[in-house]
Amino acid sequence: VKIEKIGEFGLIKLLRKKIFSKDRRIIVNIGDDAAVIKSSKDKLLILTTDALIEKVHFDLKYCTLLEVGWKSLVANLSDIAAMGGTPLAGVVSLGIPKKSEVGKVLTLYQGMQKAGKKYNCPLVGGDTVFSPKGLVISIAVLGEVKKESITTRSGAKQRDLVCVTGDLGLSQFGLELLKKIPRKTLKSTWIKKHLLPEPRIEESQFLVKNFRINSMIDISDGLSSEINHIANESKVGAIIYEEKIPINPLIQKNAKLINKSPLDLALNSGEEYELLFTLPEKYQKKLDSIKDFKISVIGKIVSAREGLKIVGKDGKKRNLEFKGYTHF
Amino acid sequence: VKIEKIGEFGLIKLLRKKIFSKDRRIIVNIGDDAAVIKSSKDKLLILTTDALIEKVHFDLKYCTLLEVGWKSLVANLSDIAAMGGTPLAGVVSLGIPKKSEVGKVLTLYQGMQKAGKKYNCPLVGGDTVFSPKGLVISIAVLGEVKKESITTRSGAKQRDLVCVTGDLGLSQFGLELLKKIPRKTLKSTWIKKHLLPEPRIEESQFLVKNFRINSMIDISDGLSSEINHIANESKVGAIIYEEKIPINPLIQKNAKLINKSPLDLALNSGEEYELLFTLPEKYQKKLDSIKDFKISVIGKIVSAREGLKIVGKDGKKRNLEFKGYTHF
Repeated sequence: VKIEKIGEFGLIKLLRKKIFSKDRRIIVNIGDDAAVIKSSKDKLLILTTDALIEKVHFDLKYCTLLEVGWKSLVANLSDIAAMGGTPLAGVVSLGIPKKSEVGKVLTLYQGMQKAGKKYNCPLVGGDTVFSPKGLVISIAVLGEVKKESITTRSGAKQRDLVCVTGDLGLSQFGLELLKKIPRKTLKSTWIKKHLLPEPRIEESQFLVKNFRINSMIDISDGLSSEINHIANESKVGAIIYEEKIPINPLIQKNAKLINKSPLDLALNSGEEYELLFTLPEKYQKKLDSIKDFKISVIGKIVSAREGLKIVGKDGKKRNLEFKGYTHF
Repeated sequence: VKIEKIGEFGLIKLLRKKIFSKDRRIIVNIGDDAAVIKSSKDKLLILTTDALIEKVHFDLKYCTLLEVGWKSLVANLSDIAAMGGTPLAGVVSLGIPKKSEVGKVLTLYQGMQKAGKKYNCPLVGGDTVFSPKGLVISIAVLGEVKKESITTRSGAKQRDLVCVTGDLGLSQFGLELLKKIPRKTLKSTWIKKHLLPEPRIEESQFLVKNFRINSMIDISDGLSSEINHIANESKVGAIIYEEKIPINPLIQKNAKLINKSPLDLALNSGEEYELLFTLPEKYQKKLDSIKDFKISVIGKIVSAREGLKIVGKDGKKRNLEFKGYTHF
């Protein structure tokens, strides 16, 4: 069945039954002019939005609508995590071609819903419009954060440790493989991080509760680009040690398949959704004691005058080139 | 200068300087992963989103980028008003072609900014991405509302008065003229409501403070469509009196220019952004005493069994046909 057949209100009715959920925080959800949500009394609000456009941010030749839906919400949840917060609710603006199959639109929403359920971010409403060319997905997420837990890009201080969660490089590796090689011949472990990334909400909550985090950002455009943002906003410099960068083990061996070096991938892979953060050096030991998830200390914050450097395995210091993803 | 020349970060820098504002409620704004906002302690939150796509929702042949920006925010502000709330902050997802002129993108944002300033809704962040074909604008607005002031679509009760703010029909009249006739030959009063509509935030605040409003909705798809939403959600029917519908005086005389009847326009014109609401009949006198803005009692709520009717000037009752705007 095509969307134009059931019409706008038919679609809303379907989404209301299947997708949009109500929990104790949601006072009014889809089916009204706007959603009404209850937040905690002592918290501040976080608002963020991200857009994904077909053929620009994703290609249905190599990813499913469920994966696109999942990632479109995760990109926003990762921003909430980067601010030290937790999600409250999301709204979806969706542009779809008239000839879209209802089942396919539902699958896209189910991807969002699945991420929303896993990370406690119910979808509460939105706007579905006609798009003359391809899918256009824009999601906004509302979150909340304790005042003392807010982690901005601008709080890094000299001598801070520079840390990163998880490991890096796999997302771009997966994307480049998908562009070159039929998906069914690829190992699922190679492409999973690109297709179904996870926002580091739990990790962020653990960090803001147990440490004084001076600055934090999520890695959506690549480590080199994000460290540059922190340095600019905080008016500091940073030194990164190549040997300490947590390169994903799969790409250590296989980066040559896409003619890249593992280091290049780890420095510049976008859509990793890991957290990059800085905190006072006194926490070194306490960081080492974290067992529930992986954290690597990869460098330190220095003065702005010293700039952004990377120290190679040969011990030589070079300028850190910034080659992350940009939209234009 | 084209966008691709200054790049994504050049654009963000420019917007940060010129567009995105910070007031006492805004703790963190553009330039971080997400915005952080303070809300009032005793209030609930409202979240809404609306998307506008070039050639579907607007055509730059007959409207300016400033007007498009203005309207894209107003559509959201109107939803906040319809819930009985006031805006807190907005975020913008914008898809733009690579060859866009920086000055033009800035003008679009300035339209949003102008509406944001007038209606106290600062823009606090967003996401700017590449769109392969035309502008794609999606805005999400966060608002707040007192628990006792929430006005949904589902609270209408039998014997309620059905009321509408302002007058109706002019928005579609303006749009149809713009499609047919060069803009410069048109009177500005004919096209102003279509191009620069106003959200009824002040009116909504006055209403929820001074009356018990049982249901409310904004007229974005046309009166006939919106009364249908209230009836469905509230499980009631309604009778509307033709002679009481506040038809805009300009279209009374000129509707023939576009081969429509004034009544047809008043019933089905979308993007009016007037408020349609219902309240107990005991308020009739108090409504009459409102001097600051126009309110018309156009009918009453009846049982669901009686359906949706319109009583003509001849006194005859007909079914109210629903011909408002739908996206598919």
